[in-house]
Amino acid sequence: MNAYESLEAHFEKIADLGHIAAIMNWDESAMMPTGGGRARGRAMGTLSVLLHDLAVAPEVGSWIADCESLELTTWQRANVRVIQRGFHRAECLSSDFVRAQTEAVMASEQQWRMSRSRNDWQGMLPALKKVVSLTREESVLRAESTGLSPYDAMLDLYEPGVRSARIDTLFAPLKAELPSLVNAIIERQSAAPSLLPLGEIFDVGAQRSLGLKVMEHMGFDFDHGRLDTSHHPFCGGVPEDVRLTTRYDPKDFLTSLFAVIHETGHAMYEQGRPSAWLSQPVSEALSMGTHESQSLLMEMQACRSREFIAFVAPLMRNAFRATLDDPAWSDDNLYGHVTAVKKGFIRVDADEATYPLHVILRYELERALLEGTLEVEDLPAAWNEKMTDYLGLSTEGNFENGVMQDVHWPAGLIGYFPTYTLGAMMAAQLFAAAKRGNVELPQQLKGGDFSGLLQWLRTHVHGLGSSVSVDQLLEAATGDALTPDAFLNHLRTRYLG
Amino acid sequence: MNAYESLEAHFEKIADLGHIAAIMNWDESAMMPTGGGRARGRAMGTLSVLLHDLAVAPEVGSWIADCESLELTTWQRANVRVIQRGFHRAECLSSDFVRAQTEAVMASEQQWRMSRSRNDWQGMLPALKKVVSLTREESVLRAESTGLSPYDAMLDLYEPGVRSARIDTLFAPLKAELPSLVNAIIERQSAAPSLLPLGEIFDVGAQRSLGLKVMEHMGFDFDHGRLDTSHHPFCGGVPEDVRLTTRYDPKDFLTSLFAVIHETGHAMYEQGRPSAWLSQPVSEALSMGTHESQSLLMEMQACRSREFIAFVAPLMRNAFRATLDDPAWSDDNLYGHVTAVKKGFIRVDADEATYPLHVILRYELERALLEGTLEVEDLPAAWNEKMTDYLGLSTEGNFENGVMQDVHWPAGLIGYFPTYTLGAMMAAQLFAAAKRGNVELPQQLKGGDFSGLLQWLRTHVHGLGSSVSVDQLLEAATGDALTPDAFLNHLRTRYLG
Repeated sequence: MNAYESLEAHFEKIADLGHIAAIMNWDESAMMPTGGGRARGRAMGTLSVLLHDLAVAPEVGSWIADCESLELTTWQRANVRVIQRGFHRAECLSSDFVRAQTEAVMASEQQWRMSRSRNDWQGMLPALKKVVSLTREESVLRAESTGLSPYDAMLDLYEPGVRSARIDTLFAPLKAELPSLVNAIIERQSAAPSLLPLGEIFDVGAQRSLGLKVMEHMGFDFDHGRLDTSHHPFCGGVPEDVRLTTRYDPKDFLTSLFAVIHETGHAMYEQGRPSAWLSQPVSEALSMGTHESQSLLMEMQACRSREFIAFVAPLMRNAFRATLDDPAWSDDNLYGHVTAVKKGFIRVDADEATYPLHVILRYELERALLEGTLEVEDLPAAWNEKMTDYLGLSTEGNFENGVMQDVHWPAGLIGYFPTYTLGAMMAAQLFAAAKRGNVELPQQLKGGDFSGLLQWLRTHVHGLGSSVSVDQLLEAATGDALTPDAFLNHLRTRYLG
Repeated sequence: MNAYESLEAHFEKIADLGHIAAIMNWDESAMMPTGGGRARGRAMGTLSVLLHDLAVAPEVGSWIADCESLELTTWQRANVRVIQRGFHRAECLSSDFVRAQTEAVMASEQQWRMSRSRNDWQGMLPALKKVVSLTREESVLRAESTGLSPYDAMLDLYEPGVRSARIDTLFAPLKAELPSLVNAIIERQSAAPSLLPLGEIFDVGAQRSLGLKVMEHMGFDFDHGRLDTSHHPFCGGVPEDVRLTTRYDPKDFLTSLFAVIHETGHAMYEQGRPSAWLSQPVSEALSMGTHESQSLLMEMQACRSREFIAFVAPLMRNAFRATLDDPAWSDDNLYGHVTAVKKGFIRVDADEATYPLHVILRYELERALLEGTLEVEDLPAAWNEKMTDYLGLSTEGNFENGVMQDVHWPAGLIGYFPTYTLGAMMAAQLFAAAKRGNVELPQQLKGGDFSGLLQWLRTHVHGLGSSVSVDQLLEAATGDALTPDAFLNHLRTRYLG
């Protein structure tokens, strides 16, 4: 075996253990009884150390160096590049640190599930402080090894190559324009006739069947994946076996359905990764922002459109035994429901216009948290202040719907939040390009036919894996690097057009 | 760390990876979509090699040797003994062999699920031949390392210390007496008034609720386990998180319910393993026969008794909206159903009187298979011959309900089948002793109170882990080594008494 072949063999082994870690993580969120948590935490700590030891094996460094002199294909070269990035990322952490962090994060996530449901901030505090302190430590180690600032070093894990200076530039027009845009939309929507309520109770079995039907239309391959329930909807597993989840609220089927659509967008990305490269790092999703662009392209761009509603409205009426005689179940009223803009507490339930404000709030707080200008104890007050400022809502004493609503910080994910809004921008930019490339697209969605859209995404996004950069991908697919323009245009057209 | 402490630390790591392997195996049977099978097979191959490499690490050998000179407690000494046995077992196989076998077994199990449902013996044949050939190879390697015969070397994996000569002695009275005993029972049951049918359709949701309710009464800890569905009922997972499964037939709720009871018996053993030792091999179940004794003690001894039926009959009537006005739902008729003896094709559906004949058939065939006096191609004919001989049933052309009904051989488990009947014997012997030790027991079961029985089992079986031998356990708990007497007495009393 030459150096490149040795690398591939080594990373196939890592992919195998990564497969196992991914399914186990899904299991922890979707299946594991709470009493299993302690033993599971220890087991996952051991697995993460094994994975870490493989990732930093000294041979990897020499193989990478020896690849320089080999003739490699473009994809092989890209694979070495992604491997090298991962090697540097892993090298700066010790096995002991990785184990301590994995175990602290698992304990803290388990604590979060309990404490959140009890609105118990004091109960959450010790575990969260521990995780934040470990993440600060991590960010300093990463900063030393990359020459970036601590926050940028963390951000680079989720959005390679993007720095906070660029985030600031990209977010500035949103921060400037969104508050007034949101007010204008709300004013306009409240001037229109009120939305008619859809009913009180929606059978959970019928909700699930409707979700499965929509997934099928979207092209989800059920031979390589499944749908379950969890506290927080997510998409996990591996490309050969994608595990996505939603949650059901008997009083509101739309939230669950659009969570399914969102996660199916993620799932289509995973199922569309370059099949010949699945055991290698170059097949992985390009960035968290790119991943989110795929979920938001489906959820916000494609499926909150008038065209998709025309297709799905009869399925909804059928699922819940409603008829067109009932004006609440008209296409127009349903469209009104899925595009209603409202200032709310919860990020994951937010509409696409207010959502970036939720993200900007978190981005500003987590940067301060990591830089040490904000302490964990002071988070609720800082949260309340920004929430009042950006969305006019007080979260005083309301931890459950305030600072404790997301699992990210308890899970040690700091530097992750901005990628949601990068994803929203990319989604708008990509969807506009897809429509330019295929004028039949709206008509196809009206017929429940996603194959044209999927084909375009397979070619321009999914099938590329990590072989290019985000800007390269966007320039090739849309003609432009990343900008907030398409996203803001989309909001103005859909809500004020 | 001294040598003993090093051993403990090493085996804690092995227990962590074993935890992961156990949950992943459950996932494969209960959750994984079929398309995920290939990638999963490779991933589990990698994990099994990692586990194997840890098990045969040369340090383990030296630590074991160094323990000789240390002062250890009885349990520590027992732990070293179990570790040493495992070390010798692992040492004789190479990593390459372990990977090849794991992958072949996974492919063959996946093939079995498809082929069985299509009655497709030819489709199963190549994968089964490969697995049997690998198991033959394994048995020869184990025979060389232990000095036992190839079959005994395999049997020792599942029932440590028991040899086929002893199995022959224990099974001889069953083989001699059971055919006529079964005929006598059937004759007697057919002379009695016919059983009244219970109905046509039993809601699967109601079946599941009934199963959960019974599990609760039996003392199953739902904070450390869950109930799901799979092709074949089984009990997997880890003591802190026991995963048990059943399957539901809408036409027959009793099969599913008694599968739940059976698997809960296994689960109680797992949940009752010595908690201070859970990360160490000495905490593991003593043998497969002992494990089966716990499931059969619950399923056959405790729960097919008149007392338990008196308790569960009202729950059954309630679950399926039946009333005492309907004579089909009387305690007597229900008791008749759960103790009906019938010559049937399927081992897992067999009553306790015919069950050992199913096992003896498999024991004889698998010994011949391993010793090379029977080839895989000739299994269906040999199966048919013995089935006709022992139970008067022809399985010609009926592979699905004949040679293909069990997953064991496709899974490479040869030497395992006898433990089912050893378990039946132990169950009868233990239950008789438990009743002698606690005369209130039948009365307690009549009230749905399993706590007295569970207490006895915790003390005499579960809590001992692998710290003693099977005969030591039985002698301490019952006054006798293993014999078939209690089992045969039980059959005579329950069915002909």
